[in-house]
Amino acid sequence: MNRALLFLAASAALFAQAVVSPEVNAGGRVTFRIAAPKATEVLFYGDFMPVGTTKPMQKDSKGVWSVTTDTLPPSVYIYHFVVDGITMADPVNPRIKLRARTSASLLEVPGDGNAEWQPRDVPHGTVEINYQKSKVLNGETRWIWIYTPPGYAASGNKKFPVLYLFHGSNDTAGGWVLAGHANFILDNLIAEKKAEPMIVVMPFGHAVPFGSPKEVQAKNVETYEQYLLQDVMPMVKAKYRINGTRDKTAIAGLSMGGGQSLGIGLKHLDLFSAIGVFSSSFPQGIEKYAADLKKANPLVWIGCGKEDAVYPRSADLAEKLKIAGVRHTWRATSGAHTYTVWRQYLAEFAPLLFH
Amino acid sequence: MNRALLFLAASAALFAQAVVSPEVNAGGRVTFRIAAPKATEVLFYGDFMPVGTTKPMQKDSKGVWSVTTDTLPPSVYIYHFVVDGITMADPVNPRIKLRARTSASLLEVPGDGNAEWQPRDVPHGTVEINYQKSKVLNGETRWIWIYTPPGYAASGNKKFPVLYLFHGSNDTAGGWVLAGHANFILDNLIAEKKAEPMIVVMPFGHAVPFGSPKEVQAKNVETYEQYLLQDVMPMVKAKYRINGTRDKTAIAGLSMGGGQSLGIGLKHLDLFSAIGVFSSSFPQGIEKYAADLKKANPLVWIGCGKEDAVYPRSADLAEKLKIAGVRHTWRATSGAHTYTVWRQYLAEFAPLLFH
Repeated sequence: MNRALLFLAASAALFAQAVVSPEVNAGGRVTFRIAAPKATEVLFYGDFMPVGTTKPMQKDSKGVWSVTTDTLPPSVYIYHFVVDGITMADPVNPRIKLRARTSASLLEVPGDGNAEWQPRDVPHGTVEINYQKSKVLNGETRWIWIYTPPGYAASGNKKFPVLYLFHGSNDTAGGWVLAGHANFILDNLIAEKKAEPMIVVMPFGHAVPFGSPKEVQAKNVETYEQYLLQDVMPMVKAKYRINGTRDKTAIAGLSMGGGQSLGIGLKHLDLFSAIGVFSSSFPQGIEKYAADLKKANPLVWIGCGKEDAVYPRSADLAEKLKIAGVRHTWRATSGAHTYTVWRQYLAEFAPLLFH
Repeated sequence: MNRALLFLAASAALFAQAVVSPEVNAGGRVTFRIAAPKATEVLFYGDFMPVGTTKPMQKDSKGVWSVTTDTLPPSVYIYHFVVDGITMADPVNPRIKLRARTSASLLEVPGDGNAEWQPRDVPHGTVEINYQKSKVLNGETRWIWIYTPPGYAASGNKKFPVLYLFHGSNDTAGGWVLAGHANFILDNLIAEKKAEPMIVVMPFGHAVPFGSPKEVQAKNVETYEQYLLQDVMPMVKAKYRINGTRDKTAIAGLSMGGGQSLGIGLKHLDLFSAIGVFSSSFPQGIEKYAADLKKANPLVWIGCGKEDAVYPRSADLAEKLKIAGVRHTWRATSGAHTYTVWRQYLAEFAPLLFH
C-alpha cells in the first residue's frame, strides 16, 4: 500500500481511540458511538430491544455515528453494531462479550450497588479456570470455569455442594461469569445467608463445534453428557472438596444449557437432586420421564420470560409436568431471552438448593 | 428503519457467519477473511508484520475480503482488520485479544504440540480470578489473575514462591494467560523440573485509566506501586500459601509492565530478589540505583528483541548497568514487541528463580 493510505489508516485508528463508547448518562440513558467516516449505514442492536430490530445510528460532521437510548434499568446488556452489513463489537469498549462465534460487547448500567448481580462489599469467591485434556473430545484441552465460595481455600476439610451451570448457544465457559455475574450473585446470596456456600462448575457447552451442520449439532447434548460425566465430573471430584452425594448436586442452565440440564438430569436422576431450566424447551417429550420424576422427586425449576420467543414451548413443558402430576416450580416472568432474566433466575434458584 | 434494510442486515449477519477466519493452511500459511461487501478498502495487520505496516485484502465476487500470509512459525499472534478506517477484531473469530481499549483477535498457529507455550499432556495449574475491592483505587472492584501450580490445592501446608508478572499497555490482567500462555509455560517447565512450582500473580496494570492525559498517565507507576503493595500483596499473603520471604519473591513484566517491575522493584529491594524486564526501557535513570543494586544484589534479567522499537533504549539500560558494575543478564534476541518474544522470555526467566 502507498504511504498516503498508511497515514490515513493510522489517523483513523487514532481518531477511533478518541471516541467514547458506551457512555452512561445521568438518568440511565446510554450513548453508543463509533467512528466510521466512510460508512453509508450504521445500525445498533442491544439485547434490551426486541429481537430482530435495530436502531439506525446518526452520523455527525466528523464521521462519528451515535445513538442514545431511553432510560435503561440497571443491568449488564449485550450489544453490537452493524456497519454496512458487518456485525461487530464496539471497537473501543474493552468489555467484550466472548462468544463461540460472532462478536458483541457488554454494557453495564450500574444501579445503586445493591443489585443482586453487582459486586458488593462482601467477601468474594474465586473463579478458577481449570484446563483439562478431554478424553471424550479427542484430546482437546478445554477450560472449565469453576466458582469456589468465599473462604473455600481456608476451610480445611470442609466439603461443599456443587451446582453444574450451563451457558447457552454461541456463548463460552466464561459467559455465566463475565455476562451473568454468577460469582457476584453467589457472593451476595452467601453473605446474606440466603444460599449455601457452593461450588459452581461451568464447562464449555459446545461439545460439537458451534455452527456444525444439523445432523452433527443433533449430537451435542449426548456428546456433552459424556464429556460432563467422563471428563468434568471426575476432575471436579478429584480436585475440589465436594460432598458428591445426590442431595448436594444440582444441574441447571440457560437456553441451550437448560435443555442440556434437563436432558442430562432426567437420565441421571441418581446423580442430581435439582434441575434448573432457564428459558428453554424440551422437544424430546417430557411425558416419558414422568414416572421416573415422580419416583426420584427432584426439585425441578422452570422459568421463562413472557417476551421470549421460547416462552410458549417453555410454558408447554411446565404444563405437561403439571398434567403429569410432577412436582415443579414454574416461573413465568417478565423479560426476554437475556442475561438480565437469567441473573434473576440464578438469584431465585440458588437459595432453593441443598437443604 | 425499513423492512428491506432489516432484511439486508439480517442476511449480512448470516452471511458473515459462513465465513471461515482465520484458517491455518497446511504448511503454516494463514488465510484471514471478512465479509464486507460494501467496503471500499480493507487492510490487515498481524503482529508478525513490521509495526506501522498493513497488507491490503482482496475482495471476491461475494464481497468477502481475504489475505493469505507466508508461512508463519508456530505461535499465538495478535491481528486486526481496518475496514474503511475502522480498526476491528475479526468478527467471526471467538478468540478475542482482550484489551484496555481497542479490539483485536488472536491467531494460534499450532506447532508439533511441544512448544513451550502449548498445553502438553502434563498436569495443569489453575488460573484463579480473584475479585478485590481496592482501597487504593477508590473502592473499585478489580480482578487479579493468579496462577497456582499443579497440585497446589492438594499440597497441604506447603508454601510456594511468588512471581508478580505484569502486562503491557492496552492489555488486561488476563493478557499473560490468554495471549501469553504463561500458565502453560509454567506447567511445562514445572513438569520438566526446570522451574520451581510457583504462584504467579497478574494484576491489571492500568492504575490510572488507559488513555488518560499525559500528566495523569505519568502517575501510573506510582499509583500501581501503592495498589500492588497495599491491596494486591496483602490479599495474596492472606489467601495463598506463599513463602513470603525476599528470596522467594520476584517481579517481572513486559513493556509498560517491565518499567513497572523495575520501578517498583528498585524501590523495594527488600521485598524482591529478582527483577525481569522484558522489552522495556527505564527513562528514570538507572545510575542512581547502582549502589542499592550492588548492595542488594538481586537477579536482574533484561531482554529485548532487535526488531523492537524500544531496543536501543533497552540496550542502553543494560549498558549502563554494565558500566556501573551491577550484576545482570542482558539478552538481545531476535523478534519484535510481541508475545512471541515474551513467551520465550518467561520460559527463560522462570527457571532462574527461587534457587
